[in-house]
Amino acid sequence: MTPLDPLLFGEIDPPQRLLMGPGPVNAHPRVLRAMSADLLGQFDPEMTGYMNQVMALYRPIFGTQNPWTMLIDGTARAGIEAALVSLVAPGDTVLVINFGRFGLLLGEILTRIGAVIETVDAPWGEIVPMEAIAAAIERTGPKIVACVHGDTSTTMAQPLDGLGDLCRAAGALCYVDATATIGGMAIAADRWGVDVVTGGLQKCLGGPSGSAPITISDRAADHIFARRHTEAGIRSADSIDGAGPRIASNYFDLAMIMDYWSDKRLNHHTEATSMLYAARECARVMLGEGLEARYARHAAAGRAMSAGLRAMGLTLFGDDAHRMTNVTGVFIPQGVDNDRVRAAMRDHFEIEIGTAFGPLQGRIWRIGAMGYNAMKHKVLLTLAALEACLLREGFLLPAGAAVPAALEAWG
Amino acid sequence: MTPLDPLLFGEIDPPQRLLMGPGPVNAHPRVLRAMSADLLGQFDPEMTGYMNQVMALYRPIFGTQNPWTMLIDGTARAGIEAALVSLVAPGDTVLVINFGRFGLLLGEILTRIGAVIETVDAPWGEIVPMEAIAAAIERTGPKIVACVHGDTSTTMAQPLDGLGDLCRAAGALCYVDATATIGGMAIAADRWGVDVVTGGLQKCLGGPSGSAPITISDRAADHIFARRHTEAGIRSADSIDGAGPRIASNYFDLAMIMDYWSDKRLNHHTEATSMLYAARECARVMLGEGLEARYARHAAAGRAMSAGLRAMGLTLFGDDAHRMTNVTGVFIPQGVDNDRVRAAMRDHFEIEIGTAFGPLQGRIWRIGAMGYNAMKHKVLLTLAALEACLLREGFLLPAGAAVPAALEAWG
Repeated sequence: MTPLDPLLFGEIDPPQRLLMGPGPVNAHPRVLRAMSADLLGQFDPEMTGYMNQVMALYRPIFGTQNPWTMLIDGTARAGIEAALVSLVAPGDTVLVINFGRFGLLLGEILTRIGAVIETVDAPWGEIVPMEAIAAAIERTGPKIVACVHGDTSTTMAQPLDGLGDLCRAAGALCYVDATATIGGMAIAADRWGVDVVTGGLQKCLGGPSGSAPITISDRAADHIFARRHTEAGIRSADSIDGAGPRIASNYFDLAMIMDYWSDKRLNHHTEATSMLYAARECARVMLGEGLEARYARHAAAGRAMSAGLRAMGLTLFGDDAHRMTNVTGVFIPQGVDNDRVRAAMRDHFEIEIGTAFGPLQGRIWRIGAMGYNAMKHKVLLTLAALEACLLREGFLLPAGAAVPAALEAWG
Repeated sequence: MTPLDPLLFGEIDPPQRLLMGPGPVNAHPRVLRAMSADLLGQFDPEMTGYMNQVMALYRPIFGTQNPWTMLIDGTARAGIEAALVSLVAPGDTVLVINFGRFGLLLGEILTRIGAVIETVDAPWGEIVPMEAIAAAIERTGPKIVACVHGDTSTTMAQPLDGLGDLCRAAGALCYVDATATIGGMAIAADRWGVDVVTGGLQKCLGGPSGSAPITISDRAADHIFARRHTEAGIRSADSIDGAGPRIASNYFDLAMIMDYWSDKRLNHHTEATSMLYAARECARVMLGEGLEARYARHAAAGRAMSAGLRAMGLTLFGDDAHRMTNVTGVFIPQGVDNDRVRAAMRDHFEIEIGTAFGPLQGRIWRIGAMGYNAMKHKVLLTLAALEACLLREGFLLPAGAAVPAALEAWG
């Protein structure tokens, strides 16, 4: 221990920072408190009871009746990889609907799985029209279609109504990454007709990163169970293996994870208990508020943020008709120093706003209002602080206009 | 929301259960409290400061000077898979030192990676002698040697002194899964000369499952960086890719995870902030206690548990010379109902003890004393409760003998 500071860096004591970027955001205090509950054994009836409650709580949040609705132990990206590695076998053709960085991520993960990747693309700031998707499905004959719902890199939300019908007609399964929208914009897995949807806690659900809710249609579950290979250490006489190709990951093998969450309770990983408590409380907070009220609150926050930014004379990025409600892209004005403004926001106001990736890096900020932060006062405080920081930069703007515009847009 | 109970299953309120199985165990209250701290943005200087502290705190715990010492976001099994998928390319020969269920798990994960798997085996309840390992390395010429340190399925701890020398002489890299020993038995990555070691929080570190500490030698880091393929969404002019085969997983790509934990701070997953707070506090509690004091406490708990069980007339499972200090296997006596005793322990005493896997299922119990539960009073209470439950089963034992024997063995 000698080389370490004897104070061992002190108690955990993060600054109270308002996180108005594209996520992670501040967690709801009830979620933080839920994580301080004591642990349980993984096959304790109280624990499996909580697991079953989580399954019930996430069905309305995903807009589904799917029995297979549960958690993957890892960040939102773990949920994406679990879905793709369990659905897709090497050599399968996958059509990626690509309109931003997280569409690229789907392709990246699929490359490693050994899929044959086809894409149908939109420029950053737009979405892919359903007719283009239909044509691409016809052209490529995919086994799987993969899509991001809301891509925070571009702040665009892809319309998904009708996608399931196109996939079913073509005999394809459909995966949707709803990390950035779940809890803030309506997820309608059953109405969309999509097979697997994954999310994360750290954006509109108002929890910490580290648990990925997932829902799986019966059709997809059959497909996945056909690839089941029970591991040697827990194999028994009644283990049933499928004839399909073995899933390339053990940790992300949804067949084994479903066996763990089912009444079989076959040992796999040790469920991340505190994160399960967090996921459960995120869902309770959300359903207690009511789905429609919650989506309306996010929509109001998005409208107010957009109106306030425009009242400051700033220009929003991307297609107005397909904007995510919970994160807004705004061009950094000419002559304004990106890093200096974000530093001033943080140092003077303890507010974080987001930078951008790839072609948008240094060109836009991404300002979020998600989950516990999709609140009127937090939107107004962010606008007021940004106005002050831009004025200090010498940017000419109609001082005092942003807050009233936002208030009016909130409605 | 209509189909759900309007009370949404109520507040989180788990029973206060003493977890004396092979893990997970009860978390230290300081760890639970640390998780209720508010969140930070992932590139916030306060957050990256905490990440750097975690790197420093886990070096002494792993017994290493390795700069690359950090966390994988997922359960202990995520750490294992991240290590193996990043070290091993398809077609590589891997020698697994196999003496229990978690040796089988290494083989299971490696099968999915496409490795050529060789094993050197011991019967459950024994360890693999170093001479047998040396012979197996000579026979198989592995690129990687993989081993579990303490396998809770058999309660055996594999001696590892000298393993690194054998591996280096053969030009092999060496991986060790220390999930069940880290925090309770000395990990000596540098003295052993092994390259990658992973752990989990939910056993002797006294935290919740969901974060996997890892350490990586410079030699292994070079090997891994030779397989680096920066993902498209964050690729820039100064991205450096390696010539080696692409790592089969994105989530578990240690090259990208190291780029995230390094000063480069390249975006990958969103760090599971609350779990990082938990991992940080686990380490602070441990280093505050002192490594030697902590290992001695676990050794005393193991001695006391063993002595108490023997004083009850029970027979321990496995080789006395290589017993893990933090979990003890004991044969279920003839005529005693396994399930009924465990149910009585839970229902009357709120104490959980562990059942077993595979060939030991129904034959032994596994009784742990790990982390915050490796305490004298918890060992004594467990022994007293077990004695009462066995007496109710009609098992003839010298009543009152276990506790004094345990007290004497504690020392």
